[in-house]
Amino acid sequence: MISTEDILAIQKRSEVTHSQILEAALNCFSKYGYDASGVAEICEASRVSKGGFYHHFPSKQAVFLCLMHDWLDGLETTLSVIAKESGTVPEAFTKMVEMTQEIFTSASGKIPMFLEFWIQARRDPIVWEATVEPYKHYQSIFANLINRGIQEGTLQTVDPENGARIIVAFAVGLLLQGALEPDATNWTGVAGEGIQMLVKGMKK
Amino acid sequence: MISTEDILAIQKRSEVTHSQILEAALNCFSKYGYDASGVAEICEASRVSKGGFYHHFPSKQAVFLCLMHDWLDGLETTLSVIAKESGTVPEAFTKMVEMTQEIFTSASGKIPMFLEFWIQARRDPIVWEATVEPYKHYQSIFANLINRGIQEGTLQTVDPENGARIIVAFAVGLLLQGALEPDATNWTGVAGEGIQMLVKGMKK
Repeated sequence: MISTEDILAIQKRSEVTHSQILEAALNCFSKYGYDASGVAEICEASRVSKGGFYHHFPSKQAVFLCLMHDWLDGLETTLSVIAKESGTVPEAFTKMVEMTQEIFTSASGKIPMFLEFWIQARRDPIVWEATVEPYKHYQSIFANLINRGIQEGTLQTVDPENGARIIVAFAVGLLLQGALEPDATNWTGVAGEGIQMLVKGMKK
Repeated sequence: MISTEDILAIQKRSEVTHSQILEAALNCFSKYGYDASGVAEICEASRVSKGGFYHHFPSKQAVFLCLMHDWLDGLETTLSVIAKESGTVPEAFTKMVEMTQEIFTSASGKIPMFLEFWIQARRDPIVWEATVEPYKHYQSIFANLINRGIQEGTLQTVDPENGARIIVAFAVGLLLQGALEPDATNWTGVAGEGIQMLVKGMKK
């Protein structure tokens, strides 16, 4: 009979393997690109057998989607919490600015993979769907926030959807620039100035 | 003896070949990616012989750099002219907004290649240099413009370098979003609103 301890040990090992695959895949995609990184390379880098890999993921694409999802999901949760817990909308944006350091740090290694994702999204409808979906979540968080700002009277009447697209565009563009020239400037500071500028631009 | 007419005809044919290679390379890079597009594919797509190709370009990378340079150069010239010919700085930005339609149209087919470029830039120091260089030009155009705005008293005291990075980030992010969801909204309209928002954020 298998003991509870055994089951827990098996579960634990399975989780470790899952993380190993994700970590190795992230490295491979970032270094060699999505197309050049096969399941074989990911298995070698993670020291997991092909059987082990396919036990956890049906395909390379599934690993890719999982990586993207994990990152975007964590960010979304943080933003949602800030949006809900802040007093006025300008205050919520100020809190988000304070968070940019964290976002930059967590994003810095993932940008090349993020770019690969974008490229694949234009070629593969499944990846496209998976890329556009989280985007829409982000946009709706910001659109709701802007809407609330208009309601509470702190923001002028801007189109909330467009305002949200503008904020997301700024964030994406800044992450890309930061990836290209990480040491060129204090990117967190630039992020803060930019958001303040945009908020001032939306204020009454 | 070769007549002037003959020389002109040869020059003309050479220019046509040059353009054919560039056009075919743009298609290949956009469709299959930089890594998957070899000189052989570009030659086939452009109906130019390998000898013809190497007469015009020393390498695939050279074609890539030429494409990027041509596009960024055209844009830079337009922006510089606007910057110089406008009255106040907020007026210059308004004129740039009117130009966004043109920028979006000229950029739309090039975004996938642009992303490839970015990815290659992280792997190849020559591409990196060629990517960062035009960036610095754009940044200096905007930094000068912001500086002028501060001097003439229309803009508040923001750090011109950071302000420029913010504007460039916004533009890049918007182009990327537009590439992902071209029909999601009127991107030219969003670009206009965003620039107005940023200018208002910088105004005194």
